[in-house]
Amino acid sequence: MIEPVRRIDAEVVPFLARGCAILGTGGGGEVYTGSLMSLQALEEFGPIDVVTLDDLPDDGLLMPIGMMGAPTVGIEKIPSGREGVVLRDHVERLTGRRVVAAMPSEIGGSNGLLPVAWAAQLGLPLVDADSMGRAFPELQQVSQHVVGRRPDLIVLTDVHGNLVTLGATSGEWAERVGRAVTVAFGGSSAMADFIMPVGEARGAVIEGSISRAVAIGRAVSDSADPLGALVEAVGAVRLIEGRVVDVERRTTGGFARGTVVVDGTGEDRGRALRIEIQNENLVAFDDGAVRACVPDLITVVDAVTADAIATEMLRYGQRVAVVAFPCDPLWRTARGIETAGPRAFGYDFDYVPIEVAGARA
Amino acid sequence: MIEPVRRIDAEVVPFLARGCAILGTGGGGEVYTGSLMSLQALEEFGPIDVVTLDDLPDDGLLMPIGMMGAPTVGIEKIPSGREGVVLRDHVERLTGRRVVAAMPSEIGGSNGLLPVAWAAQLGLPLVDADSMGRAFPELQQVSQHVVGRRPDLIVLTDVHGNLVTLGATSGEWAERVGRAVTVAFGGSSAMADFIMPVGEARGAVIEGSISRAVAIGRAVSDSADPLGALVEAVGAVRLIEGRVVDVERRTTGGFARGTVVVDGTGEDRGRALRIEIQNENLVAFDDGAVRACVPDLITVVDAVTADAIATEMLRYGQRVAVVAFPCDPLWRTARGIETAGPRAFGYDFDYVPIEVAGARA
Repeated sequence: MIEPVRRIDAEVVPFLARGCAILGTGGGGEVYTGSLMSLQALEEFGPIDVVTLDDLPDDGLLMPIGMMGAPTVGIEKIPSGREGVVLRDHVERLTGRRVVAAMPSEIGGSNGLLPVAWAAQLGLPLVDADSMGRAFPELQQVSQHVVGRRPDLIVLTDVHGNLVTLGATSGEWAERVGRAVTVAFGGSSAMADFIMPVGEARGAVIEGSISRAVAIGRAVSDSADPLGALVEAVGAVRLIEGRVVDVERRTTGGFARGTVVVDGTGEDRGRALRIEIQNENLVAFDDGAVRACVPDLITVVDAVTADAIATEMLRYGQRVAVVAFPCDPLWRTARGIETAGPRAFGYDFDYVPIEVAGARA
Repeated sequence: MIEPVRRIDAEVVPFLARGCAILGTGGGGEVYTGSLMSLQALEEFGPIDVVTLDDLPDDGLLMPIGMMGAPTVGIEKIPSGREGVVLRDHVERLTGRRVVAAMPSEIGGSNGLLPVAWAAQLGLPLVDADSMGRAFPELQQVSQHVVGRRPDLIVLTDVHGNLVTLGATSGEWAERVGRAVTVAFGGSSAMADFIMPVGEARGAVIEGSISRAVAIGRAVSDSADPLGALVEAVGAVRLIEGRVVDVERRTTGGFARGTVVVDGTGEDRGRALRIEIQNENLVAFDDGAVRACVPDLITVVDAVTADAIATEMLRYGQRVAVVAFPCDPLWRTARGIETAGPRAFGYDFDYVPIEVAGARA
């Protein structure tokens, strides 16, 4: 049973950050920047409320927000902090309706934290939900797309204040055009996507994501055996423990793509795990066999602290453990797998749930 | 003295097409598609009115329209014909104001003709004006940018009905983001840009462009010496007559770029002219010396008919004449030259007016 989070203040941020990093599966942006921006905004504007959909008026707008782009760019090109205000004002001007709450588009990585900073500045509550239950690289890889909502109102902005409003005919077109805009913006953009009335959000978002992230963060932080606590908290399979012996990474087409190889140590000596990356960890191969794959979560963590390591922070020599755990049931529906399963990323094999693939070793 | 055009019907279209091709300096898209679409729309919806700014209410919106992208793409990926309606409806929805007239963003090439088709379908008049007095490759190379208007409302759409609304912080950002969207759309987009109230358009557009294009077209069509008539109609310098001996062309970054070499024949035997292209003819070099350059107009025409040849239609062996003539005075202001002079295209030399450069031979 996860304790519901009702407020985020400076005390909660470190737990949220640890949890978001773990749910980020390497993506969503390294949590350091997002943590600092959240702490600063909370100090300036006070704690923010975390609410459920039931706490909000049905006709108010729910605004999912986050950064789009390659996390390798995000390390150096940080948000201005004004993005939340620019997005909210533009959405209200376009729709003539009031935004009553914000929500992280993705709970994973810095994208689970930046909405805290933006909400504090906006004086808005955050809904205890997100659109992924993790992080995914592409715009259409969200719960709203899976349940069939159209991407008819997406707003992107950059640090200069350029503003793009996109009404796309499909999720794939939204990704294609949104990615091009993000690259033109210099590799990252702040985005509000799939904006909708609160009354239409139930079933179209993944509820409880903030509470879950905080619970995972607390479990890992409070334990003398952080890795064991993590495995227990998320129901993970340990894929390998070892050392990073190879990292190949490039920023291309608006994504960070690459591979990392972990060479087993201790009980895993003699084995190696290769992980393929598109912003997030997509697939883990063990001697050519799939041990875990999207939409399930694959996270590389520090072997001692169990702190997740973002894909853009992977380095030769790091001592790590790789864990994998089940995605939200929404992603295991036919359309969920079509949207974010292995074939959606160009792999020529079918999704195998971690409960099956992870046990094959 | 140019005869003002007050109506466009099927009789006028061929003259308009010839004039637009000549003013296109190779760009704006080959006029064949635009002519056919105009003729079809005029047959279906009847002739359109051509009006002056004085004929319109000051608070109505003037909507400049045209296609953006590489003309090499435009040959194969033709408009759906619905673009005008999609753009107008979206502009009215966004602004809450009524569009009272359309205008070609650029009078050059097919972009001088497509607005006829769209206006006919919309039941709107066309203003006898455009934003260039010719064709230019980049979004910010328009009169509105030269006079300091901000690109705060640009709408782009594609054949699928995807819609992007852009509010940019500068003309350069508008070009950068608009180009990225156009490439994502598959290499071409239909655009309404620098939409403004009629009352603010005076001085911000180049008036008389449609009448001028039709007058040029008539002059060339009515003469037994089309090339002579063209030279007289626009006050052109003949740069060379000869044969196309080399064409190099590639579609890259949303533009058609390349060079064409014309080898002199007759009196010009022994000379060669090299023209550098970015959608439009930018600079004509004669043995390394600049004989004509942007923002002045350089047009390659058929040696016999004086029909302009679009850059994407240049072929080895064509018998051509190359003429150059002065741009609108707006482009010879400091900000005009900064926006569309040689240095704006990366050349390391200053603008030399055709009256000077053309006489150097």
